[in-house]
Amino acid sequence: MINIERLMSRLEELSKIGKTEDGGVTRFSFTKEEAEANALVARYMEEAGLTVEYDAVGNLIGSREGEEGLPVILLGSHIDTVPNGGKFDGPVGVLSAIEVLQALNEEGVSLRHPVKVISFKDEEGSRFGFGMIGSRAVAGTLAMEDLERTDERGVSILQAMEEAGFPLDAAKLQTAKMDKVKAYLEVHIEQGKVLERNNVGVGNVTGIAGPVWLKMKVVGEAEHAGATPMGQRKDALVAASMIIQEVEKIARMHPPAVATVGKIAVSPNGVNVIPGEVEWTIDIRSTDEKRRDEVERAIVAFAERTAEERDMRLEISELQRVPPVGCDERIQTLIQESIAEIGSETVSLPSGAGHDGMQFKDRIPIGMIFVRSIDGISHNPRELSLAEDIEKGAEVLYRTLLKLDRE
Amino acid sequence: MINIERLMSRLEELSKIGKTEDGGVTRFSFTKEEAEANALVARYMEEAGLTVEYDAVGNLIGSREGEEGLPVILLGSHIDTVPNGGKFDGPVGVLSAIEVLQALNEEGVSLRHPVKVISFKDEEGSRFGFGMIGSRAVAGTLAMEDLERTDERGVSILQAMEEAGFPLDAAKLQTAKMDKVKAYLEVHIEQGKVLERNNVGVGNVTGIAGPVWLKMKVVGEAEHAGATPMGQRKDALVAASMIIQEVEKIARMHPPAVATVGKIAVSPNGVNVIPGEVEWTIDIRSTDEKRRDEVERAIVAFAERTAEERDMRLEISELQRVPPVGCDERIQTLIQESIAEIGSETVSLPSGAGHDGMQFKDRIPIGMIFVRSIDGISHNPRELSLAEDIEKGAEVLYRTLLKLDRE
Repeated sequence: MINIERLMSRLEELSKIGKTEDGGVTRFSFTKEEAEANALVARYMEEAGLTVEYDAVGNLIGSREGEEGLPVILLGSHIDTVPNGGKFDGPVGVLSAIEVLQALNEEGVSLRHPVKVISFKDEEGSRFGFGMIGSRAVAGTLAMEDLERTDERGVSILQAMEEAGFPLDAAKLQTAKMDKVKAYLEVHIEQGKVLERNNVGVGNVTGIAGPVWLKMKVVGEAEHAGATPMGQRKDALVAASMIIQEVEKIARMHPPAVATVGKIAVSPNGVNVIPGEVEWTIDIRSTDEKRRDEVERAIVAFAERTAEERDMRLEISELQRVPPVGCDERIQTLIQESIAEIGSETVSLPSGAGHDGMQFKDRIPIGMIFVRSIDGISHNPRELSLAEDIEKGAEVLYRTLLKLDRE
Repeated sequence: MINIERLMSRLEELSKIGKTEDGGVTRFSFTKEEAEANALVARYMEEAGLTVEYDAVGNLIGSREGEEGLPVILLGSHIDTVPNGGKFDGPVGVLSAIEVLQALNEEGVSLRHPVKVISFKDEEGSRFGFGMIGSRAVAGTLAMEDLERTDERGVSILQAMEEAGFPLDAAKLQTAKMDKVKAYLEVHIEQGKVLERNNVGVGNVTGIAGPVWLKMKVVGEAEHAGATPMGQRKDALVAASMIIQEVEKIARMHPPAVATVGKIAVSPNGVNVIPGEVEWTIDIRSTDEKRRDEVERAIVAFAERTAEERDMRLEISELQRVPPVGCDERIQTLIQESIAEIGSETVSLPSGAGHDGMQFKDRIPIGMIFVRSIDGISHNPRELSLAEDIEKGAEVLYRTLLKLDRE
């Protein structure tokens, strides 16, 4: 059913857009690279017999018609990346969905429900520190205020949208909301080592850990590094370092929660200047919301204590807070049956990483299929999933879609 | 003697070139801003009756003739800055020297020795991580290999020189070396709080602490922040944080040494990516070379232990290593006499910050006059020295120059 050569050659072709020196990919939202990648994916959608359009926020959608009055089955993922990320995180899901519909089309299989494949706008949040922009719009939870956030050069999401040909106002934003959706299905690479350890190529996802993203800033005093005695300093980077180290310690004490400082900016950032200001992000996740909140409270308390002890100002802001979300029980059963049908052991696992489906909590039932990641490496040029596992993921999606359509 | 209004108005005018939003100044070597600032200083030199020229590396030199066969007395400082630095660090010395020669010229005072005012190229090292380029050239210790160092965009010093109109080869570099120099005198702001605590406007400098600049890089594993359990991570930023914190601890245990991590770069620097690589600088200084080396050894040992414990690769390279240098005893006496003559208490203090004069160790006798820094703040837009103190600094320079000329 699945033409894995076609799927893999598309994956390879897509990975050339935004390719980095290390063999990774950098594609941020509303950039030239992202527009080029979308144009290529639109061509694949057309080859699969889908009707292609962009919605108000720039989500790329390929549609297949169904019986009048029946709700849509939505398949998708994203094609934006983290800085110097891999070529599988996102594209595997978008291209598997297109491959499934192209296979159905070629085989002349008719479905009752309309099906849409969506390539969501900006899942990663790499550019604006605010992810899942496209899926929020589809869920109807994206607010115009959210679009005031800016990238490192001070360009807001709204400005970036306008420059990319998607000028937006509140009324137009409403048109991106999808109302009649039966289910959302996504294939994604695992980005962890659970499937590898279980020696299987695909798995059923039980739920998605919800991330809290905080931004912290500590303000000390930028002074000359040679002429300021150690006892008279307010070194913002030393304070930040104490907190960053503690973030790891606290998370270790609260499994399965994880917490990460991934991004940091020091000002003025000169070899011979004591850092006056340091700003960094903290990403905290757990499938258990209470545990996650405990970690957050402990980190904030430690940061406040450290800033107070060192007589520095601490600023904390929240970039996003997404509750963990469970996958639909019925869809999980269909995915498990499909996995069994292709002769694989049925492994179920939670997702530590966030995904667009989280935005549909209490709105659209979701199901997710994970594809094994070699060595669990992701967000890295060495990210890798094997063709045989990607094929299994697409086959499970194909079978799950057919089962869901019949219900 | 000293026209302080003229000196202050020049200081103000010069500070407008490269002015930042915060009211600070950013002027890196071989930039448009630096060329513009040099052109303005050249005009001041001409107004002071000096003959103006640039040497092979772009040092700006204003000369006054003297008796045939006598060595030159060299006065100077620099006009480049750290990122978002102050307007006094450097310019006070260059403009005080010009003011002294202009006053001598206006008063028709003749001197036996030729005198040169020099505005040294790139004292701070902000652009290439390698400072005192101009004074090294004058000392004859700058090597062509040194000019292979690059800035953040990969432009080498040699390339930057050529683009700025100073193409260089080994033979040309030799022409920048000054051979017959009787003494080097520099006025500079203190950038510390010793003069303020002693309630005096100027001070005599006993010696300059020599900096060692190291670059450290730790290489871990960039992975997904949500899907990688805490126990399986190689987070380069947590390792770096442990080391940065220890740099402070070690320096505190070895007074009067100071050690600072001023600059840091994280890769890939994404909110939801575990940092795979972190690179940072360490600036270690003491007037006592043995103490400084003890601090360095302790930091390197801790960094190596940390990297080993966390199974990460550590790379250490040396950006510069300058031995501490003492000011000439005889010149110190002349400076102290001059300070006493203007009715100020004679305070002597070491310099924690590095200065161009260090490059003349064992080659040219040096003397330095410090001007009080309000709150000791420097390398910061809030850097401040009062006109009355700057006037005292210029007057002490004037008197010291006359005394030195007579010897």
